[in-house]
Amino acid sequence: MDGVPNDYPKHYCGLFGVFGHPNAADLTYYGLYALQHRGQESAGITVSDGVDLRTHKGMGLVGQVFDKTTLRALPGHIAVGHVRYSTTGSSNLKNAQPLVVDCACGQIAIAHNGNLTNAARLRAELEMQGSIFQTTSDSEIILHLLARPSPQSRLQTLESVMSRLQGAYSLIIMGEEELIGIRDPFGFRPLVLGRLKSPDDSVAVASDGYAYVLASETCALDLIHAEYVRDIAAGEILLINRQGLHSVNPWAGSQQPRAFCIFEFVYFARPDSDLFERNVAQVRINLGRALAREHPVEADLVIPVPDSGNWAALGFHQESGIPFGNAFVRNHYIGRTFLQPSQLIRDFGVRVKLNLIREMVSGKRVVVVDDSIVRGTTARARVTTLREAGAKEVHMRVSCPPHRWPCAYGIDFPTRKELMAANSSLEEIREYIGADSLGYLSLEGMIRATGLPASEFCTACYTGRYPSPLESELDKFVMEQQRSRYRRSVADLVPPATQPPLL
Amino acid sequence: MDGVPNDYPKHYCGLFGVFGHPNAADLTYYGLYALQHRGQESAGITVSDGVDLRTHKGMGLVGQVFDKTTLRALPGHIAVGHVRYSTTGSSNLKNAQPLVVDCACGQIAIAHNGNLTNAARLRAELEMQGSIFQTTSDSEIILHLLARPSPQSRLQTLESVMSRLQGAYSLIIMGEEELIGIRDPFGFRPLVLGRLKSPDDSVAVASDGYAYVLASETCALDLIHAEYVRDIAAGEILLINRQGLHSVNPWAGSQQPRAFCIFEFVYFARPDSDLFERNVAQVRINLGRALAREHPVEADLVIPVPDSGNWAALGFHQESGIPFGNAFVRNHYIGRTFLQPSQLIRDFGVRVKLNLIREMVSGKRVVVVDDSIVRGTTARARVTTLREAGAKEVHMRVSCPPHRWPCAYGIDFPTRKELMAANSSLEEIREYIGADSLGYLSLEGMIRATGLPASEFCTACYTGRYPSPLESELDKFVMEQQRSRYRRSVADLVPPATQPPLL
Amino acid sequence: MDGVPNDYPKHYCGLFGVFGHPNAADLTYYGLYALQHRGQESAGITVSDGVDLRTHKGMGLVGQVFDKTTLRALPGHIAVGHVRYSTTGSSNLKNAQPLVVDCACGQIAIAHNGNLTNAARLRAELEMQGSIFQTTSDSEIILHLLARPSPQSRLQTLESVMSRLQGAYSLIIMGEEELIGIRDPFGFRPLVLGRLKSPDDSVAVASDGYAYVLASETCALDLIHAEYVRDIAAGEILLINRQGLHSVNPWAGSQQPRAFCIFEFVYFARPDSDLFERNVAQVRINLGRALAREHPVEADLVIPVPDSGNWAALGFHQESGIPFGNAFVRNHYIGRTFLQPSQLIRDFGVRVKLNLIREMVSGKRVVVVDDSIVRGTTARARVTTLREAGAKEVHMRVSCPPHRWPCAYGIDFPTRKELMAANSSLEEIREYIGADSLGYLSLEGMIRATGLPASEFCTACYTGRYPSPLESELDKFVMEQQRSRYRRSVADLVPPATQPPLL
Amino acid sequence: MDGVPNDYPKHYCGLFGVFGHPNAADLTYYGLYALQHRGQESAGITVSDGVDLRTHKGMGLVGQVFDKTTLRALPGHIAVGHVRYSTTGSSNLKNAQPLVVDCACGQIAIAHNGNLTNAARLRAELEMQGSIFQTTSDSEIILHLLARPSPQSRLQTLESVMSRLQGAYSLIIMGEEELIGIRDPFGFRPLVLGRLKSPDDSVAVASDGYAYVLASETCALDLIHAEYVRDIAAGEILLINRQGLHSVNPWAGSQQPRAFCIFEFVYFARPDSDLFERNVAQVRINLGRALAREHPVEADLVIPVPDSGNWAALGFHQESGIPFGNAFVRNHYIGRTFLQPSQLIRDFGVRVKLNLIREMVSGKRVVVVDDSIVRGTTARARVTTLREAGAKEVHMRVSCPPHRWPCAYGIDFPTRKELMAANSSLEEIREYIGADSLGYLSLEGMIRATGLPASEFCTACYTGRYPSPLESELDKFVMEQQRSRYRRSVADLVPPATQPPLL
Repeated sequence: MDGVPNDYPKHYCGLFGVFGHPNAADLTYYGLYALQHRGQESAGITVSDGVDLRTHKGMGLVGQVFDKTTLRALPGHIAVGHVRYSTTGSSNLKNAQPLVVDCACGQIAIAHNGNLTNAARLRAELEMQGSIFQTTSDSEIILHLLARPSPQSRLQTLESVMSRLQGAYSLIIMGEEELIGIRDPFGFRPLVLGRLKSPDDSVAVASDGYAYVLASETCALDLIHAEYVRDIAAGEILLINRQGLHSVNPWAGSQQPRAFCIFEFVYFARPDSDLFERNVAQVRINLGRALAREHPVEADLVIPVPDSGNWAALGFHQESGIPFGNAFVRNHYIGRTFLQPSQLIRDFGVRVKLNLIREMVSGKRVVVVDDSIVRGTTARARVTTLREAGAKEVHMRVSCPPHRWPCAYGIDFPTRKELMAANSSLEEIREYIGADSLGYLSLEGMIRATGLPASEFCTACYTGRYPSPLESELDKFVMEQQRSRYRRSVADLVPPATQPPLL
Repeated sequence: MDGVPNDYPKHYCGLFGVFGHPNAADLTYYGLYALQHRGQESAGITVSDGVDLRTHKGMGLVGQVFDKTTLRALPGHIAVGHVRYSTTGSSNLKNAQPLVVDCACGQIAIAHNGNLTNAARLRAELEMQGSIFQTTSDSEIILHLLARPSPQSRLQTLESVMSRLQGAYSLIIMGEEELIGIRDPFGFRPLVLGRLKSPDDSVAVASDGYAYVLASETCALDLIHAEYVRDIAAGEILLINRQGLHSVNPWAGSQQPRAFCIFEFVYFARPDSDLFERNVAQVRINLGRALAREHPVEADLVIPVPDSGNWAALGFHQESGIPFGNAFVRNHYIGRTFLQPSQLIRDFGVRVKLNLIREMVSGKRVVVVDDSIVRGTTARARVTTLREAGAKEVHMRVSCPPHRWPCAYGIDFPTRKELMAANSSLEEIREYIGADSLGYLSLEGMIRATGLPASEFCTACYTGRYPSPLESELDKFVMEQQRSRYRRSVADLVPPATQPPLL
Repeated sequence: MDGVPNDYPKHYCGLFGVFGHPNAADLTYYGLYALQHRGQESAGITVSDGVDLRTHKGMGLVGQVFDKTTLRALPGHIAVGHVRYSTTGSSNLKNAQPLVVDCACGQIAIAHNGNLTNAARLRAELEMQGSIFQTTSDSEIILHLLARPSPQSRLQTLESVMSRLQGAYSLIIMGEEELIGIRDPFGFRPLVLGRLKSPDDSVAVASDGYAYVLASETCALDLIHAEYVRDIAAGEILLINRQGLHSVNPWAGSQQPRAFCIFEFVYFARPDSDLFERNVAQVRINLGRALAREHPVEADLVIPVPDSGNWAALGFHQESGIPFGNAFVRNHYIGRTFLQPSQLIRDFGVRVKLNLIREMVSGKRVVVVDDSIVRGTTARARVTTLREAGAKEVHMRVSCPPHRWPCAYGIDFPTRKELMAANSSLEEIREYIGADSLGYLSLEGMIRATGLPASEFCTACYTGRYPSPLESELDKFVMEQQRSRYRRSVADLVPPATQPPLL
Repeated sequence: MDGVPNDYPKHYCGLFGVFGHPNAADLTYYGLYALQHRGQESAGITVSDGVDLRTHKGMGLVGQVFDKTTLRALPGHIAVGHVRYSTTGSSNLKNAQPLVVDCACGQIAIAHNGNLTNAARLRAELEMQGSIFQTTSDSEIILHLLARPSPQSRLQTLESVMSRLQGAYSLIIMGEEELIGIRDPFGFRPLVLGRLKSPDDSVAVASDGYAYVLASETCALDLIHAEYVRDIAAGEILLINRQGLHSVNPWAGSQQPRAFCIFEFVYFARPDSDLFERNVAQVRINLGRALAREHPVEADLVIPVPDSGNWAALGFHQESGIPFGNAFVRNHYIGRTFLQPSQLIRDFGVRVKLNLIREMVSGKRVVVVDDSIVRGTTARARVTTLREAGAKEVHMRVSCPPHRWPCAYGIDFPTRKELMAANSSLEEIREYIGADSLGYLSLEGMIRATGLPASEFCTACYTGRYPSPLESELDKFVMEQQRSRYRRSVADLVPPATQPPLL
């Protein structure tokens, strides 16, 4: 979770929505707090009072973007919020979500977690039909598809829109008087439903007096004392309004395969969240136990890399009986503004974020447990630090298989070129990071630790088997590159002959 | 230009564009400075380096929105800039211009001065066709019309777009490799063409090595030492690219009437600008001279209300021979953050912005010259101040006729209800403001002072004769109201039967 | 007042104080607004509620430093405020005034306008006695002198402090329950007394129910509708508390000469202020009339350099009969953040702040009237602009004599080296600025225009006759240099022998 | 370290200084980062280039106060930095340290950790001698004492100053060409000496080419890769300049007792720091082991309260053999701007900062280990959360004795009234927090865990035995109260008879 910049995968988004509570914006503020680990670059909340939508967004953490004044300016009983990771600075405020537009069906706000794999083609098609794009986000594509007026009902429209989208998308959509939760048919990204008693019957769901909550993870329900109801199913559209909850699932009964991101269990989700009604921390303890069985070692101390390796290390300790010790100490005050050291005094980076309690490791054989090795630079720095502190042996253990493929579904992994395991043998990695031994958990061991069948998961980043076939070389290209040159690549789709003359 | 808040009309926009100069953003920065009087709420610049468009916008004055860093981040040889007046706070950043989008014909930036009178209908039609709107600005409508792919050339497309627009619009449109200036066929708002030698032939217009400049007023040309070439004609589309200047005018040869806003001469334009190749300050001196002839009075001193009445007062003095004196002193440090006084110490407002040199007026018969009376409250405060300072007589002279009608073409006048002259006789106004006599310049006198034929002008705010017939009651309604409730009114256009069911 | 940076003298300070009004901070806010022309770098207000002193200060204009929240956090019926010009950025916040300290006689706030000419020696002496200095302002010296406990009364203490100070000082001092106004015995800088009915008898001056106001200029009284009572006399100490007004003047009856800064009449003071109960604008009109008599010329137009030459130009017009015209137009939106143009597009500076209405001067013989020529660069730019616009002849007239000496009493003139008239003949100046003729008002003419005897004035910047003899070469040195190297120069005063060893 | 606001003691300060490194400001920036846990309200750095002192300070975290620009503006090879906890907002910037002054001995900067117990009397005495105070910090008193010119050497002067101070003070003082570290004779607060090779001999200590570092804790040495040299001794004055290190200790050889704050071991210091050359984390593990021996319990899981209880819980687990589990999860993104929930949705506070992994504790008997119970509210919230999650039994263990007395030496404990253990029996505390059992470590057990003799420590907060006798009732009063009413209490020291008359 720290170390050399960008050496851990970045999340792409966290979603939160409320229907039927007079303090919808406040609840969403807390919900986004709980989901802050899913995106730290921008935050936004849109509310509806049944008539008008109001939005406040900004670059930064939830606590920086919102204050009492901004929350007070967001009255309403329906709300949708979003936290996002993005690559650059304030100029990208326009990409912050929720995106809010006016169209023939009224005002619509959308919050999106995931990545469409046919975005380039959809966008090109829409532009050919006259659509204009004000952001570089693929979420804007969904809005354009939604906005086409049609005699169909809102739910029917959503079904047709979904039939055109490929890839990963958990969505919360808000209209003036309803809140809608959607998961793609593969169910790549999580989305759960919760509820809490509304203090105001006149805005709650009429049939039961509850306010309903949609959130990326259950930890957001816990924080606001909402009870967990159920997961939104893969492929489900759930529309909540005053009249009640209305669910359809066009893929129900089909042979549609599932592909939940297993890396949510390994790394992304907060340990106190439940996924598939399984506690994430417990799954991570299981991962650590399995790791100890698969790669046992004689040692004196098991050390987690905080906080990403905390629970797997605990499981390793429990299974192996080797004593556990928090020998790495995090500096809790490292903010995003931390300055990189100048030339003269470089190499402080690692110690600024994590310091080692040398007395705990000196003269010992230690096992270091982490949840991934991406570029290898961070792991190498850890091992070096341990050796300098006098560790006799350093054994590295990783609680999942080696990452060899980029993610097509919304995770900002490095490209293949930068993924160490895509280009090196395990022995080369071990040598590079300088460990006495190195052990990765097997794919089977990882899946078994979740207690769920392999058919539930996307494991593409380990195996290269992308469940949703990537449409074209263009989409693969766009996926591996930054999106900023988007328009250029779109142009390639359009035969030059159709480009009109200037004069 | 000061006094009771909102008692002077607000400008709606200033435009500036450059083609063919390596420092296009810097030139635009200075150009917008010169046009700052046309809008102080937001400022924005978009540049193109021939491939990519980059934009920086913000709320506030040009000098607040831009600094060295932001300008350095705007490389390119083509630029378009905009200053804007808007009604509310930071939440309206999304309405700041230039608006920039991606569409089938590439990246487009647009800057707009004016007001469409069929905006509500156009927007409803577009929404019915699936367009989504992210701002409340009518400029976004023009983008949607432009973005429709067609086999036509860019110039032909612009002609068709213009044929659908009604009302006032001066536009600067920028593509990746061209800059386009447009004025509506009535020519409500000004737009001029200038040029200066480009220091870099490789980006200049190939045929002559010049960089070309488009600007709302000639004062912006002066500041950057550009030479004035000509006015963009009413109805003209002028496209500038590396190959040269390309002009079409669909209305050329038609009976299309002209309707230049005469209030630009009276009040809006900077005195050092030329309109129709006539210096604005000289026209205002003429207005003052005509006023002295139409409403002579025996008096000891002619006082301008600074700075709006400066030149008309000078003309009044020259014609009448009554001595001239700047008895009102402006406080140059009044910023936009000035706090309104609390209850206990109210009524300071007028004195904060203007103070009177009492010794200059004590015991004298004075003539006060201003360029308009809108609500009457400011004029009344001036007269009271003069009487308290010992003026024996106070004669009010106004350098144009009484304002009786709201503007449909982009000026933020009060509604008819608030326009004093729409609801009161001249004698009632005189009595309300407390002057010994009151004289307005006649319509004929005003027009004659410009040296141009009456057929060139829109005088709707004085006469109620709107040259471009207002399409519907809805547009009139929207025009008189704030635009924020826009969507609601659009809904009225759409038969409820076409609203699709939710479920 | 514009043009090449720093080519006009900078003011050093404006003072404002209130005793006996429940909204003391609000009144001070408005008072400082009226005095903003005397200092734009920092602003501060300290209030007392009779028990505690509270302060808010900041860098920038009054309207930037204060808002509703900061003013509401300043409750109390006594207040002192200060606006200040300083040379550098935010690091100088510590020099912003009022300075507030705790000492044996309680809490004291001080606001100071002027410059002590024996500051270096006083500071050295105080440091030798153990005083510590936290600012580089000479006002802190006065605090140290005041803070010495003594059996004397407050007024006696102030008398002894004054006997040690040399140079220029108008002071407002506030204790927990009193407000004190002081002018140095020469009376270099202005300070006036006003009053307004207090809405709360319990905090007003008990004897008459008035709140009393001290201010650098009468324009600050006007703004808050306070009536002018009288000038604080040179050498006077006026203490205001609940019991009444208590005045002493140690120099009363002595042969103490007077030395009011005549440049306050010519340039510094606001035209709507009265000095010596004479209106400043009227005096400036007199200066212009005298100038027309001393340096008559055949011409077609008299043009003021706005706003510094406005009234002198009016007087010149009245006396000469040559028509008057505001051919220069100020850009009111130039803020302090204006960027200097880059290399490629330089020389815009002059036009950004002032533009010329060319039609008004083309083909004419013009007289340009300003109130000073300091370095000559601005005047030269003006003349060039006029010639480029087609003026046939350009005659420069200055409404005071040439500036040849730096000011020792608080005005930030350039050093002698930079003062053009200190190093060039009038003919050389005329040639440098490119005028057809150049005329300065004579010393006698200037004094006569005030209607006061020459013995009232300091004219050192014209004549080099410094009324208060400068104590030492060191003080002269410090005076001409920036104060930042202060401590170094102090060290020169202390024999090295007395420097204690380190170890 | 979290939970109900203010329920953990606040640190008062962290100090860092460098002598002899060309990047002194950068090193200090990193050093302050490592010490950020000792104060988060303001941060400041002063550098010397041998001639001039330059300072930058601000409210907030180190990473918020400093950026590249501010650090680049701090050139020099000597630096002193300070982080501080204070009670209120931006108005207290003037209290931020280092404090920097000019005085007879040149420029001096001071950074202070601790609390003088005779501050009120010293300040009153100094004010009676004419000193003025611009802050409310007792550090300013030390500057006044230092500034008195004397024929003594700097070291002799420091000795005399120390003889007048009572209470706790670790100091770093910087002159233009030296850096000085001081600890009070009791040695209440830590201060260590480190060194690293200087890349520039011309500024390093001439004799050995090293740059020397002073820091509150060794973790700051680690971060910049400096080697630990030794602790500054209680009572020592260490002066570092180009010529070398010069140490005196006026108390050496005396019977002066020692009184190091034992709570630095228990709670304050970072776990990766060494105190008395003993690793803090190891001592905390020892505390946990001792706690397990003193208060054994049958249970299924040992849970730390993160991060304050992490190491003691580990020790408890090691000694007892009960499994260890991080069932509480911290939210790392809680910043200082977090909004308190509104009335309707209160009680989220605890869950926002810490969430519980319910599955880990459900149905289990758990031991919760923390390092202190101050008001009891946080502990109570923890126990409630555990019970709601289904814990069968909850046993609370605290790794030190009950806190019964306020700290006189620089820790912001609550007053006695608020200290739960000062007013309740252990059984009452247990009942209030709702635990099944409650065990505090004994005083003897705590001391033994450090491996040092009891005579080394101050244990006043547990025992009420204040090693440095509190001088007067006034000082005790000031100590228990906020300092803001300081001046008022000083007045009580001065016989009213000596207050001089006003007139």
